[in-house]
Amino acid sequence: MKAVVKENAGVGAVLKDVEMPILNEGEVLIKIKAAAICGTDQHIYVWNSWAQNNSISLPAILGHECSAEVVEVGPGVKNLKVGDYVACDTHIPCGECYQCRNGQQHICQNLKLFGVHTNGCFAEYSKIPAVCAVKIPKSIHPNVGAVLEPLGTAVRANVEVQSSGKNIAVIGCGPIGLMAVSAAKAFGAAGIFAVDINDYRLGIAKKLGATEVINSSQVRSGDKLVELTDGTGVDAFIDASGNTSAILDGFKGLRKGGKAALIGLPSKPLEIDLGSQVVFKETTIIGIHGRRMFETWTVMSNLLDKGLLNIDPVITHVLKLEEFDKGFDIARKGEGGKVILVP
Amino acid sequence: MKAVVKENAGVGAVLKDVEMPILNEGEVLIKIKAAAICGTDQHIYVWNSWAQNNSISLPAILGHECSAEVVEVGPGVKNLKVGDYVACDTHIPCGECYQCRNGQQHICQNLKLFGVHTNGCFAEYSKIPAVCAVKIPKSIHPNVGAVLEPLGTAVRANVEVQSSGKNIAVIGCGPIGLMAVSAAKAFGAAGIFAVDINDYRLGIAKKLGATEVINSSQVRSGDKLVELTDGTGVDAFIDASGNTSAILDGFKGLRKGGKAALIGLPSKPLEIDLGSQVVFKETTIIGIHGRRMFETWTVMSNLLDKGLLNIDPVITHVLKLEEFDKGFDIARKGEGGKVILVP
Amino acid sequence: MKAVVKENAGVGAVLKDVEMPILNEGEVLIKIKAAAICGTDQHIYVWNSWAQNNSISLPAILGHECSAEVVEVGPGVKNLKVGDYVACDTHIPCGECYQCRNGQQHICQNLKLFGVHTNGCFAEYSKIPAVCAVKIPKSIHPNVGAVLEPLGTAVRANVEVQSSGKNIAVIGCGPIGLMAVSAAKAFGAAGIFAVDINDYRLGIAKKLGATEVINSSQVRSGDKLVELTDGTGVDAFIDASGNTSAILDGFKGLRKGGKAALIGLPSKPLEIDLGSQVVFKETTIIGIHGRRMFETWTVMSNLLDKGLLNIDPVITHVLKLEEFDKGFDIARKGEGGKVILVP
Amino acid sequence: MKAVVKENAGVGAVLKDVEMPILNEGEVLIKIKAAAICGTDQHIYVWNSWAQNNSISLPAILGHECSAEVVEVGPGVKNLKVGDYVACDTHIPCGECYQCRNGQQHICQNLKLFGVHTNGCFAEYSKIPAVCAVKIPKSIHPNVGAVLEPLGTAVRANVEVQSSGKNIAVIGCGPIGLMAVSAAKAFGAAGIFAVDINDYRLGIAKKLGATEVINSSQVRSGDKLVELTDGTGVDAFIDASGNTSAILDGFKGLRKGGKAALIGLPSKPLEIDLGSQVVFKETTIIGIHGRRMFETWTVMSNLLDKGLLNIDPVITHVLKLEEFDKGFDIARKGEGGKVILVP
Repeated sequence: MKAVVKENAGVGAVLKDVEMPILNEGEVLIKIKAAAICGTDQHIYVWNSWAQNNSISLPAILGHECSAEVVEVGPGVKNLKVGDYVACDTHIPCGECYQCRNGQQHICQNLKLFGVHTNGCFAEYSKIPAVCAVKIPKSIHPNVGAVLEPLGTAVRANVEVQSSGKNIAVIGCGPIGLMAVSAAKAFGAAGIFAVDINDYRLGIAKKLGATEVINSSQVRSGDKLVELTDGTGVDAFIDASGNTSAILDGFKGLRKGGKAALIGLPSKPLEIDLGSQVVFKETTIIGIHGRRMFETWTVMSNLLDKGLLNIDPVITHVLKLEEFDKGFDIARKGEGGKVILVP
Repeated sequence: MKAVVKENAGVGAVLKDVEMPILNEGEVLIKIKAAAICGTDQHIYVWNSWAQNNSISLPAILGHECSAEVVEVGPGVKNLKVGDYVACDTHIPCGECYQCRNGQQHICQNLKLFGVHTNGCFAEYSKIPAVCAVKIPKSIHPNVGAVLEPLGTAVRANVEVQSSGKNIAVIGCGPIGLMAVSAAKAFGAAGIFAVDINDYRLGIAKKLGATEVINSSQVRSGDKLVELTDGTGVDAFIDASGNTSAILDGFKGLRKGGKAALIGLPSKPLEIDLGSQVVFKETTIIGIHGRRMFETWTVMSNLLDKGLLNIDPVITHVLKLEEFDKGFDIARKGEGGKVILVP
Repeated sequence: MKAVVKENAGVGAVLKDVEMPILNEGEVLIKIKAAAICGTDQHIYVWNSWAQNNSISLPAILGHECSAEVVEVGPGVKNLKVGDYVACDTHIPCGECYQCRNGQQHICQNLKLFGVHTNGCFAEYSKIPAVCAVKIPKSIHPNVGAVLEPLGTAVRANVEVQSSGKNIAVIGCGPIGLMAVSAAKAFGAAGIFAVDINDYRLGIAKKLGATEVINSSQVRSGDKLVELTDGTGVDAFIDASGNTSAILDGFKGLRKGGKAALIGLPSKPLEIDLGSQVVFKETTIIGIHGRRMFETWTVMSNLLDKGLLNIDPVITHVLKLEEFDKGFDIARKGEGGKVILVP
Repeated sequence: MKAVVKENAGVGAVLKDVEMPILNEGEVLIKIKAAAICGTDQHIYVWNSWAQNNSISLPAILGHECSAEVVEVGPGVKNLKVGDYVACDTHIPCGECYQCRNGQQHICQNLKLFGVHTNGCFAEYSKIPAVCAVKIPKSIHPNVGAVLEPLGTAVRANVEVQSSGKNIAVIGCGPIGLMAVSAAKAFGAAGIFAVDINDYRLGIAKKLGATEVINSSQVRSGDKLVELTDGTGVDAFIDASGNTSAILDGFKGLRKGGKAALIGLPSKPLEIDLGSQVVFKETTIIGIHGRRMFETWTVMSNLLDKGLLNIDPVITHVLKLEEFDKGFDIARKGEGGKVILVP
């Protein structure tokens, strides 16, 4: 089968023929319908310091976001059968640790990541632990199915801050931020304030339902959020930027008793005055490392199946698998959209 | 001023000229823009056994649902000024009891009800404790403002069961049930299953966003809810019927671990098998006596202000205050809509 | 090996030699250290209508509460090894249904019960799915380990109503009720009001930390609870009686905004006035079907390991396995204590 | 009457005769039984930069923690009468803002502090808004009543992290930290790990129920917490140190999915790696600015009234009001205990 393989340290990857995967206990073989490029793939593709320090053994097939069809079922698999339409959760839990035994397998102590610590899905076929293959409704288009992993993170953030009828800021309008805007819209958030420094991305945010867009290269977004809420501040903010200065503005724009849901991963430490921004304000900060398995999937599938969650504008490019180099190029330029690769 | 007065025991009321109210400490005088007829008004109008046993002293001005303008402010009032546009919360809390001091003033131990234990709002003017007059956005039409009290109850139920992305049944499509359908729609509920025995009401439910309507005079609604959710049952049901047999069907249609939000007031005891319907299923039942003061109002105002909560189809009749007899007549026939009286 | 076997319909069981169990995928063989008699065992022993209608196939080895040592590990078992000290959760989840995939495997849609739908633990050895064998600290005495299953239910109820610093009523002082008193004491409940009709049991409740005992054959317990809380009512009640009249008194004694945790299984429907007892009061009712797997186990183990949860007075009889008939006899007379059988 | 007055900028204060306070609407006059010295008093006493920048107008009577008897009731006060035994909440809410109207008056947008923005309680008498004077049981000794304000903060932190049966670290064993240890003990926390650099304070922590004490000048407390919990990390930590390096160690010692309750006010920004410490771990951080009004007071009163919350070892010095200089001296040396001043 064909696969996009990262063979050696250094930039880039190659498309080549590789052996079909052989299933072990508890695994399924899936035929990829569509896959999507994520920032993590980019890290590995360019082989930056993050990639060099993350226990990634080469050669490896890239990719972890996909929709697929189950074509073979390994021994001991009960919840899936051939023909099932699935999307993949990247989190591979150990099933034995404290968190796995207490309803938090998505933050397993021994968490492995599909497509990072295993071969991934930029290929015709892939094998994956059955626990990570989530059945989804046929009504979901494969290109949308390919991005359920990041979309789930965006949905989860809205569940945590209970967006309905609230004023919500979304900081950072890359793909996950834009999806968080869509999810806020689907949940019935009243005010959706999208913050970014890029007008193109803010334009997409507007299309997806943002009630106001704030270009934080032009105004202090913290002050603006307070102003737009008549001096009270927003009920919650969702950070998908990982930009420490933007996050600090989020705290400034938050009302007393508000919530901060953090998805983004800053490249440097956040310097925060706990007294004014957390203690006196009684801020609740919630770290979000992807989807709850599988409450988030259920909510997301339900919404998509009923047409209540529109993320089409986030998918800006659909390429053939062979065009992966072009795809990584487009994604690196970062115009906010997701790039889909179809095998 | 003109007011609809219940003068004596027995059916009916009269429109007559009465003295303008005189404000006490902490009260405001409001000029009524629009008022709405509620089931409670009906009880008092016909003077049924409920009315006879609820410490209501006559003569009394009827009505407790209204939108209004503040025209005079009594001593000690800080949060309102002349010209403010308000709707009224019916709950008059004592401010001193355990519940009032612990964030639950809407279930005050010494709760009095505006328009039941005091003179009400079917009049040109009314006086009301300032704590019960809630400022609302000017964007809300007075006729809609007049029904925020029941609408808030419907919104609250959706907050309690966290409807977003969930499958929700609404049992009983009288005005509050219909509003619960609207609120479920606004919150992004995925499946909204409206249950009633009246096809006219179910038709309105459909218009308001119900994904399925179930005429429970024709099918067993409990079985139907299970069927429509592929055998799992709904995530939650909201009862606005007060019909014990319909409520039992709600429990049957609920999934294990589901939630039941109860608004309706049955006229007879519910006979329920706790083992199968509550304990083994781990059902959570939540009693709802109106709006939280004032978290619910905030969410509701935000949604209405942004046009996210459409209840126009619920308001079926707008009459002059003088036509109150006709209004009570229409309401008693119970075709599901709210009747508005405009002074 | 020796086992207590229910061979035929009709009263009673026999001790006999049976084949050692043979392990399947995912199972472990355990050597029983101590087992405890539960009401469910009693139902099966006397073969009442509940037993006749619960898909129990005979012959069957009785018993589901036990502490044990793992002596053999079946294929595919990862979380246990020979020599582990375990107690058993009776709930056998399917691992595939909506609830199992959403952190609620203890209320699995296809739940089977160890010792009811499988052979049980009144024997020298038993086999059990590995998922149900929970490692516990060596500091827990085997006789205590044998009753962790019901104790977990009692602990869970206190988690749900958040007993710390609150006024809690425990209705019914059979073994689970008494354990709920102990757990309330461990959690730092301020007022612990134990209700029963049996002074012997109330005496044990007092020893375990009840601040007040109420003999409900002599006073109206609902009124008494209100009186003991200066007219406010208790913050929560935990029902372990399954007695409908006692449960109604619990609702009467509950404060507005209070919580009711229901464990007991009434033999007839509860007739309840939803208006006064649930809606106007905004009561939250929580059905409890045993332990969360495994959050409850973690809390319980921690407490026991530190000596913070004393249930010794609940264990009133320790017999040899051979004396099981005597044990069932004692349990049937219902003096409140647990009967332990040691193989 | 006698009062400790801060007359001018600069270090120190004087005891002098001042006029009796005159009550306004909604205020009560209280006769002080006992008062306690807090860090904030110290700031004002030495007139450091915090004091210089906090809108404090001089001259002012110092002190905000006290127990007292109501001796006069101002106009409009309904919840108190002469003779009531009270303690004081320092938070003076406006009653009108978003937070005040939504059950969060303790984080009012226009919050004033008793004894900071008003005259305080290091005096024979004081006046205070009735809303801040909380009736407490007569069973509470006046010296204990004097420290309910900080004790409530410590109790609140335990409510937020739900300590019962959990492993809890308390970082910083000054008075509030020590009280947090006591509260964790009262709530039935299983592991209570007290962290400080001072062995004297750690000794008091041990007396109050800490299961382990960690001198963080000798070991890395983060690593130690992980070690003491068999590699998992603690369920929650409560920071009462305000020391950024200790707080970072708290995050390191926290389990995935754990909670951090922050009370302490660092004097410099915290530099934190959000990725590893918050996002990947899904940490929930909760800012705590004192007590909820008045849920926390209810829980605290209940526990104290039943003898379940022992803080006697925290009260290390009881002086006469005249000895206030000596009191400030002792407190400044910071040996962990509270200093009480009795008028």
